[in-house]
Amino acid sequence: MASSFRISRSLTRLKASTLPLRQLSRLNPIYQQYQQQQSRYIATASTEPHTKNDEGGVKGGPAPAKEIKFTSDSYPNIKRDPRFSELKPDDVKYFQEILGSGLAVIDGLSQDASADIEAYNSDWMRKYRGHTKIVLKPESTEQVSKILKYCNERLLAVVPQGGNTGLVGGSVPVFDEIVINLTRMNKIHSFDDVSGVLVADAGVILEVADNHLAEHNHIFPLDLAAKGTCQLGGNVATNAGGLRLLRYGSLHGNVLGLEAVLPDGTIVNDLSKLRKNNTGYDLKQLFIGGEGTIGIITAVSIHCPQRSQAINVAYFGLESYEKVQEAFREAKTQLSEILSAFELMDGRTQNKILRNAKGKKMPLQGEYPFYCLVETSGSNSEHDSEKLQAFLEHVMGEGIVEDGVLAENQTQVNELWSCREEVSESLSHWGAVYKYDLSIPIAELYDLVDATRERLTKAGLIGDTDEYPAVDVVGYGHMGDSNLHLNVATRRFDKAVERELEPFVYEWVKEREGSISAEHGLGIAKKDYIGYSRSDTMVMLMKQIKGLYDPNGIMNPYKYI
Amino acid sequence: MASSFRISRSLTRLKASTLPLRQLSRLNPIYQQYQQQQSRYIATASTEPHTKNDEGGVKGGPAPAKEIKFTSDSYPNIKRDPRFSELKPDDVKYFQEILGSGLAVIDGLSQDASADIEAYNSDWMRKYRGHTKIVLKPESTEQVSKILKYCNERLLAVVPQGGNTGLVGGSVPVFDEIVINLTRMNKIHSFDDVSGVLVADAGVILEVADNHLAEHNHIFPLDLAAKGTCQLGGNVATNAGGLRLLRYGSLHGNVLGLEAVLPDGTIVNDLSKLRKNNTGYDLKQLFIGGEGTIGIITAVSIHCPQRSQAINVAYFGLESYEKVQEAFREAKTQLSEILSAFELMDGRTQNKILRNAKGKKMPLQGEYPFYCLVETSGSNSEHDSEKLQAFLEHVMGEGIVEDGVLAENQTQVNELWSCREEVSESLSHWGAVYKYDLSIPIAELYDLVDATRERLTKAGLIGDTDEYPAVDVVGYGHMGDSNLHLNVATRRFDKAVERELEPFVYEWVKEREGSISAEHGLGIAKKDYIGYSRSDTMVMLMKQIKGLYDPNGIMNPYKYI
Repeated sequence: MASSFRISRSLTRLKASTLPLRQLSRLNPIYQQYQQQQSRYIATASTEPHTKNDEGGVKGGPAPAKEIKFTSDSYPNIKRDPRFSELKPDDVKYFQEILGSGLAVIDGLSQDASADIEAYNSDWMRKYRGHTKIVLKPESTEQVSKILKYCNERLLAVVPQGGNTGLVGGSVPVFDEIVINLTRMNKIHSFDDVSGVLVADAGVILEVADNHLAEHNHIFPLDLAAKGTCQLGGNVATNAGGLRLLRYGSLHGNVLGLEAVLPDGTIVNDLSKLRKNNTGYDLKQLFIGGEGTIGIITAVSIHCPQRSQAINVAYFGLESYEKVQEAFREAKTQLSEILSAFELMDGRTQNKILRNAKGKKMPLQGEYPFYCLVETSGSNSEHDSEKLQAFLEHVMGEGIVEDGVLAENQTQVNELWSCREEVSESLSHWGAVYKYDLSIPIAELYDLVDATRERLTKAGLIGDTDEYPAVDVVGYGHMGDSNLHLNVATRRFDKAVERELEPFVYEWVKEREGSISAEHGLGIAKKDYIGYSRSDTMVMLMKQIKGLYDPNGIMNPYKYI
Repeated sequence: MASSFRISRSLTRLKASTLPLRQLSRLNPIYQQYQQQQSRYIATASTEPHTKNDEGGVKGGPAPAKEIKFTSDSYPNIKRDPRFSELKPDDVKYFQEILGSGLAVIDGLSQDASADIEAYNSDWMRKYRGHTKIVLKPESTEQVSKILKYCNERLLAVVPQGGNTGLVGGSVPVFDEIVINLTRMNKIHSFDDVSGVLVADAGVILEVADNHLAEHNHIFPLDLAAKGTCQLGGNVATNAGGLRLLRYGSLHGNVLGLEAVLPDGTIVNDLSKLRKNNTGYDLKQLFIGGEGTIGIITAVSIHCPQRSQAINVAYFGLESYEKVQEAFREAKTQLSEILSAFELMDGRTQNKILRNAKGKKMPLQGEYPFYCLVETSGSNSEHDSEKLQAFLEHVMGEGIVEDGVLAENQTQVNELWSCREEVSESLSHWGAVYKYDLSIPIAELYDLVDATRERLTKAGLIGDTDEYPAVDVVGYGHMGDSNLHLNVATRRFDKAVERELEPFVYEWVKEREGSISAEHGLGIAKKDYIGYSRSDTMVMLMKQIKGLYDPNGIMNPYKYI
């Protein structure tokens, strides 16, 4: 806690309790004096990166048990499709012929390779586990094409797999689907620092790509906790959202081209490096967020922005969700082109969880019902600091925020971010967590947290003692993207709690035209809930597309489509 | 010319001929003095909008003839599909029943309505002309649905039409296709100034939407010359590029949702207002840039950014295309988040065309082989001016640019932009123009202009006297988007010139993996050339999609697919 303690002393306090901030106008000389005084404290913006975490958006945290339950046991209603063939020694032989090296085929059919295969059969949350007997690791698009063509003709089901860091069980088999792992396709083909276009294999790790770009003063337009493991192909296949979406937009806009292989072996070569190319249907978009159900992405071409020289972070306490919305509106107006994050954390996450349960030293002494974290990144640290200061003076002068601190160096930037990042993991303090990753129109975004708490309270399921399964309901998330992480901290998984939560949460979101999966996709976790975010017509149209590209249904079966 | 003359005196000259700029370092006191002196001249950035033009990307300028040639005569190889029914009085009666008001149906079957219909049968360039006998103007999605369902069953072909400002003949009929014009669907449904999301009917005019957003301090992420006439539905259906793409990205990223009607009457309701929604295939993307060949867009939901408070514009002369690339790289680095335009004009467009042929007073006295225009927009005019000044000092100090001027007020902003905007129209000074709208990797972008000129020179087709059909080959365009407008100014359309240009230009672009249509689409103009930018596989996959959604082929037939 020592380092946390240091922050609270060295971070620039925004609240000058001796000055009647709210009464001061811009024209008041005393206020101007205050401005000058404040400007001395404005931090030199740091250029160092900081680590951030993402949230699980699935029900339950990592399972504590050593043995992971088979998905086929957790979902007894899902039956193996009898149309699919079973793997034979001849199949293994064929794959070995195609892939050459023994390292490229993990053969669990003719030998006991269960130890080697386990990491490919189960997900990192230890929540989903399949029964595959073989893992294939192609190193070229042609190999992927040969594998898929063969599997399609033989009716062997497959699961494409990148870094296997997904949160909805989409990248592991349910039964004996063949795992096609892209790890060996890991070359960066080119980067052009004039156009900012990167072309890379699907198996390139996100962090490797970002580091490569950093050398050229550019940045990957996507950042997420799993960056050290997740792969570009998986990022694109799941349309990963992450921390830079507010600033740089979604992959649907940034991915300029891709190469993919269809189940029949057809290579879709659409690896355009052009920002503008209006020559017919933009078919690559179907693979972005398709979750590997119509083909395997083998390479991507992506537009990458300049890396910002300066990063500033501030952390506020606020009195109400209305004030949070006001602060967001002001941040958009005043910070405009340099705003790179606007994160929301409710008081319970900061005080009940981090401060009280985890004993974390928090940047602000007072307790507030809401907190937010604002990050700017731009090309000129002085300009950014001035803009941020003007914004801070405004939101404090107008009484929009109650108190705040501003990071003065990279360590403090990381410390402030930790108040947002540590929430997810800390929630499992009492045992188990029900987690939802939702998009909700901003005006109503936080209402769901209160509505859920009321519901559990009314049902007598929330309380401070062990007899109650639930501890509390909290909310936090990417406010700038209308993305709420609704979390229910519990002492144990409990059917009564589940019955109160579902379908209530999904129905509530549907009524507000929100999304039941903001950024994590559907996979197997939300396969039964797509109807809450998509009409029957849309689901029917999706099935048409699935049928068109994958008539035998071999691609990632048993998942959302 | 009086006002142009005033600019050259009042615009801030960046070249201080008495100071040996290139030798000065940042630490040199004389240079600092110069800096201080210059800072007095930095303009107060203006917030007023200015008018800009787009370029025709089609072969030939507006036809001078009063009578527009029928497309069926210009393209004798295109035959009317005999599978399509012909319009009968009963059909007209049915449409009148659906649409109610007489104003919603322009009936050219039972009466002579040719004068009323002409504007819907032909395009604004007076280059394409169809033979439709009926124009339908629905005012609701349900009406569109009923019309399409009926047409699909009766095998009546249709053409969706918005503002009819396209450049490739995509929005007018070829034969007797029914025109479905969206003009009456012109309501703005909602705008949320916290999320920045606008929801509007397809028939809303772009400028109306942008003005509505301006009242809320936001901006439509697309701007183009036809903004006063073109409609949102048409913009999205053609994936219009325009002037704000460099800063805000393409419609594939900005359109959050849309509503469309399929040929069988199915209403695709995907009007999501969420920035994040990962629940299955992003089918709306197929309609973005689909050019009305699989359905009719009836409403859109779009993410709109904050409107910038400050706009600055500078205009430079440069010695080589290498220097232009260096300047662009520096602009990206130093202007970063505030860079909103980087436009290229070659010396011939500025000197031979505007200065000499048109007698325009130019902002710079000296003549240079290349010019570029840099625009910044941001939230703080002082910061932007400082960044721009630092950039200017760098590019002049390093000898990257030779000379330059900086606009001091909105009039001057407009005057500088006019040096870019007036090029397109001025090119028809000698008679006819061959125009190409191309995407080419930046490093080779300008090479095509030289290669084309060499080719015509070698063929003896370019010269200063009337015996030569071609006057010159010039290049200009949206450098920031790798988008070149290649133009061949001629004295008359000439088959010998055409034979030298095509397929040469398309082949050249294909070899560099460029695009034969950067932002205008294919329509009928480029229907035969799609193969230069898309592989056979991609075209085959597009045909699959077309067949899936429009099995009877009634949607916008005879066009690119």
